[in-house]
Amino acid sequence: MQDFGFCGKVIAELKQNQSGLLMELFEAIKDRRSIRSCTEEEVTDEELNAILEAATWAPSACNKQSWRFVVIRKPETIEKLYRAASYSTQHQIFVKKAKIVIVVCTDLNVYKTFPHRERALSLFTIQETAAATQNLLLAAHALGLGACWVSLFSEDQVKEALNLPKNMRPLVIIPLGHTKSKTNPKPRKPLEDVVNYEGF
Amino acid sequence: MQDFGFCGKVIAELKQNQSGLLMELFEAIKDRRSIRSCTEEEVTDEELNAILEAATWAPSACNKQSWRFVVIRKPETIEKLYRAASYSTQHQIFVKKAKIVIVVCTDLNVYKTFPHRERALSLFTIQETAAATQNLLLAAHALGLGACWVSLFSEDQVKEALNLPKNMRPLVIIPLGHTKSKTNPKPRKPLEDVVNYEGF
Repeated sequence: MQDFGFCGKVIAELKQNQSGLLMELFEAIKDRRSIRSCTEEEVTDEELNAILEAATWAPSACNKQSWRFVVIRKPETIEKLYRAASYSTQHQIFVKKAKIVIVVCTDLNVYKTFPHRERALSLFTIQETAAATQNLLLAAHALGLGACWVSLFSEDQVKEALNLPKNMRPLVIIPLGHTKSKTNPKPRKPLEDVVNYEGF
Repeated sequence: MQDFGFCGKVIAELKQNQSGLLMELFEAIKDRRSIRSCTEEEVTDEELNAILEAATWAPSACNKQSWRFVVIRKPETIEKLYRAASYSTQHQIFVKKAKIVIVVCTDLNVYKTFPHRERALSLFTIQETAAATQNLLLAAHALGLGACWVSLFSEDQVKEALNLPKNMRPLVIIPLGHTKSKTNPKPRKPLEDVVNYEGF
């Protein structure tokens, strides 16, 4: 087993505390929920670093790693992000109540000289930040944290709130905290409805 | 613990065989690699169903689950997919050598009447299929399977190869098999290079 960095520290600590099993992958995948309600408990730097590091282990096109994570704890900035996510009729009030908000961005400059630049900018940047976000959500869940994937927001308002340079495109807002209440799993379409064999 | 479906069956079997620990989440996340070399061993239906089910537990906008998975075992179709991924100078020969190829598509019709349709089609469809793909890759890794995320291909050629209807957009090609040789981890940018606090 190689050096696990921040994740390794968390794993070692959990092993000491609980003498054994951490969260199993399939369990983490199936048991994760979108959490919109958090306790007052602070998220520690160790927890934050572990989930951020987990995010960076996502795959990316040619290992370009275009992701950038902006971590917000200041209530006035979180309020601005909440407003950026409320520009439509859908008020995502839970954003405002988070202890921490992580904004996942992509650095468009990373693909500046890439031979398939157009596809990279319209597809790869979104895919690799999404894969990183999924890692982050799974890692948060394994540590008892709750998070929610928010992509319905005004990118311009988020850019303004975070003073993002032009090349930094915000793609996901993740409110984060210690889970207060967990909802039941939302039903999934059965495999026979979403899997085709050999073509259509 | 709720009913774990196909994943549950796999977990139960592994527990019986190995008397204990399955793959831990952080380990799965950090130890996954892009695998481009597979053995001749067949991928079983149980393994395939477990990783497909893991994919469907990804989050999606309003639980729309726009993902569709096309599973290909026929060598002549796999050959066509390989050619679709070789339209540029980059020949992704490993696609041709896979035992199974899974093509992850998004059903654009799912967001037909969605209030934020444009954002859904250009962003949510890509994000939710990417999150599903990341789950799938992690699950494959936990079961000793190797896979690789390929997004550089001609969508038109894939559509033709799989006879996809107009509303079905192919976004990821995943060659899959039992891992033959594993590469070293590609280096990741350190957290201080990809994390900002409170803004830019």
